Amino acid sequence: MIENFYSVIPAGGGGTRLWPLSRKSSPKFLYDLTGESRSLLQSTVDRLSVISKHENILVITGQSHLDSVIRQLPELNSDSFIDEVEPRDSMAAIGLAAAILQLRHGDVVFGSFAADHVIEDKDGEFESAVKKAQDAANDGYIATIGIKPNSPSTAFGYIEEGKQLVGGTYLIKKFVEKPTEQLAKKYVESGRFLWNAGIFISKTSVMLEALKIQKPKLYDGIMKIANAWDTPRRLTVQNAEWAALEKVAIDYAIAEPVSKKGMMAVVPGNFEWTDVGDWDAIATLIQKSDTANSCASGQNVTLGNSEFIHTINSHDNIIFDSQEKLIVLLGVDDLAVIDSGDAILVTKRQIAQKVKDIIPHLEDEDLDKFI
Amino acid sequence: MIENFYSVIPAGGGGTRLWPLSRKSSPKFLYDLTGESRSLLQSTVDRLSVISKHENILVITGQSHLDSVIRQLPELNSDSFIDEVEPRDSMAAIGLAAAILQLRHGDVVFGSFAADHVIEDKDGEFESAVKKAQDAANDGYIATIGIKPNSPSTAFGYIEEGKQLVGGTYLIKKFVEKPTEQLAKKYVESGRFLWNAGIFISKTSVMLEALKIQKPKLYDGIMKIANAWDTPRRLTVQNAEWAALEKVAIDYAIAEPVSKKGMMAVVPGNFEWTDVGDWDAIATLIQKSDTANSCASGQNVTLGNSEFIHTINSHDNIIFDSQEKLIVLLGVDDLAVIDSGDAILVTKRQIAQKVKDIIPHLEDEDLDKFI
Repeated sequence: MIENFYSVIPAGGGGTRLWPLSRKSSPKFLYDLTGESRSLLQSTVDRLSVISKHENILVITGQSHLDSVIRQLPELNSDSFIDEVEPRDSMAAIGLAAAILQLRHGDVVFGSFAADHVIEDKDGEFESAVKKAQDAANDGYIATIGIKPNSPSTAFGYIEEGKQLVGGTYLIKKFVEKPTEQLAKKYVESGRFLWNAGIFISKTSVMLEALKIQKPKLYDGIMKIANAWDTPRRLTVQNAEWAALEKVAIDYAIAEPVSKKGMMAVVPGNFEWTDVGDWDAIATLIQKSDTANSCASGQNVTLGNSEFIHTINSHDNIIFDSQEKLIVLLGVDDLAVIDSGDAILVTKRQIAQKVKDIIPHLEDEDLDKFI
Repeated sequence: MIENFYSVIPAGGGGTRLWPLSRKSSPKFLYDLTGESRSLLQSTVDRLSVISKHENILVITGQSHLDSVIRQLPELNSDSFIDEVEPRDSMAAIGLAAAILQLRHGDVVFGSFAADHVIEDKDGEFESAVKKAQDAANDGYIATIGIKPNSPSTAFGYIEEGKQLVGGTYLIKKFVEKPTEQLAKKYVESGRFLWNAGIFISKTSVMLEALKIQKPKLYDGIMKIANAWDTPRRLTVQNAEWAALEKVAIDYAIAEPVSKKGMMAVVPGNFEWTDVGDWDAIATLIQKSDTANSCASGQNVTLGNSEFIHTINSHDNIIFDSQEKLIVLLGVDDLAVIDSGDAILVTKRQIAQKVKDIIPHLEDEDLDKFI
């Protein structure tokens, strides 16, 4: 447990690369995608419960997902849930959480952690990195934890380390977008680049001050809502102000401009992390952890109602069965076969990133109910 | 129309290579597998309606399929349906039909045609072959129609032609089992071998006499049931005699021994024929007919609720959607993706013959309800 540390989980929507399971109406964080009988959201709360008391955890989610989220997290009380009228991207969510925390508890250090990432941390490295980031936050920085890359991935943004502040904490020189493969290799070889895991740790006052400077209108709207939150006026103000909140990611609203002012710090995190971005990433994640335990190879990854999945002469497939429907694979390798109940996807793992291209196709065909 | 010609359709079970669609409870002849909005059984009746009046057509099927069969064939009256208490293979079915026809109409010529084969006959070649076989039947032969092979298939049995009887009709020298590929090539090159399409055409008296000689006990059982058929005793006798009927194919019970006596004739049939044996055969059949019309290539074959099937960068797949469930294929080729409602199969077209191996797997796993 880290003393006086508050955890915020923005559980927005998204995840079109995990279609047909992940939908507008049921985003990926609600699903068990690691075969451990806990949804990504539940695993996130489990992980944060090690560093924050339950009453110090906030979950921000869309009103359409609120019921599912509350049902999945019986350990949290109703004060822990912040509902969004409509999606307004990460800055509004994190800003509102910071403001509510500050009004409830005064100026405290909080961290924001995605609801749909997987972290494998056997040696307490995650907690230790958060503690270092807390120190940097207490020194006035907005801190992040950057993941030491184990491959030149082109699926993530990178963070370039600047000068060392104290042992294991660096100034951020700059944030860089998802690179080309060539560039990614250079980054990894340099040893100075980390994956951006979208973690932000700061004092509430520092976050809100940065927001006030960078996005004054958004700050005003958020403060109006936050001031009304724990009062009978919550609903009225929420409904009156929400539509006007700017839709912008914290990366663009705060991280990039503040890093240019030399006010952002990064702690390199030495643990396994993945954003569970697509079906291939999930399969690789599970195969890796299974191999560590059982030395199996060429195995298939089965999720959902696994007992209804049967594979014959088939290897390295990922199969998700959300119903009690028999799924049989015969003599096929490296496929993703995903049955969400009302839709089935069959594709190759190696092109799993392209699953997001199905969404515009469905829009063109007036199949919005499947999006 | 061929005068005084009776048609018999044994519609038994089977078709394990078309799992998961074809089941014990709903065999393949009940499905539209050619995309023409007629089941294989309906197409068979359509084809035979050209050569036999509706009242001269008999369909023999299991009691468990009788309702479905009657519903699919409203053009036939109740006398046309012969129900089997339990499957007893083709000899019992064809023998009983022959006996019932003889008792109802005297000694007539009839032909037996499988319920689940597809014949494409644009030039009346099928009718013309049946007429020639009828002539041979009137001369006392048990005749068959052998298909001129267009490839050295190892999926069918072959018939070797003997000496010519009259123009276009030959004695059968012998029946041969499914050959190796090498042997199949020799057969096709010789020009004297035909595919065995399981068609038998003879006088009822000749068929029953052959049965009496080859399988006297089976003959006795069948005659008892046939004599009771159009009487109030039908049900009692049927139930009393059925279990003891020998389970044997007409090929072994009659065709092979009778051909050795020089009493079987074959008419080479010059039309497109397929036994719709597996998913690849169905895809090839439909692709061939579509290409003839539209010159399309690399297209996917979609069956069932085709409007719910979407393919993106995917080619030469066969997809069956039996529900209103979205099926999306992204970047995959040459697959069979079959959704029967309670089960989904994903396999490669080139190993479609191996789908039958799934059945023993399901038996081992106590999943009999999916067989």
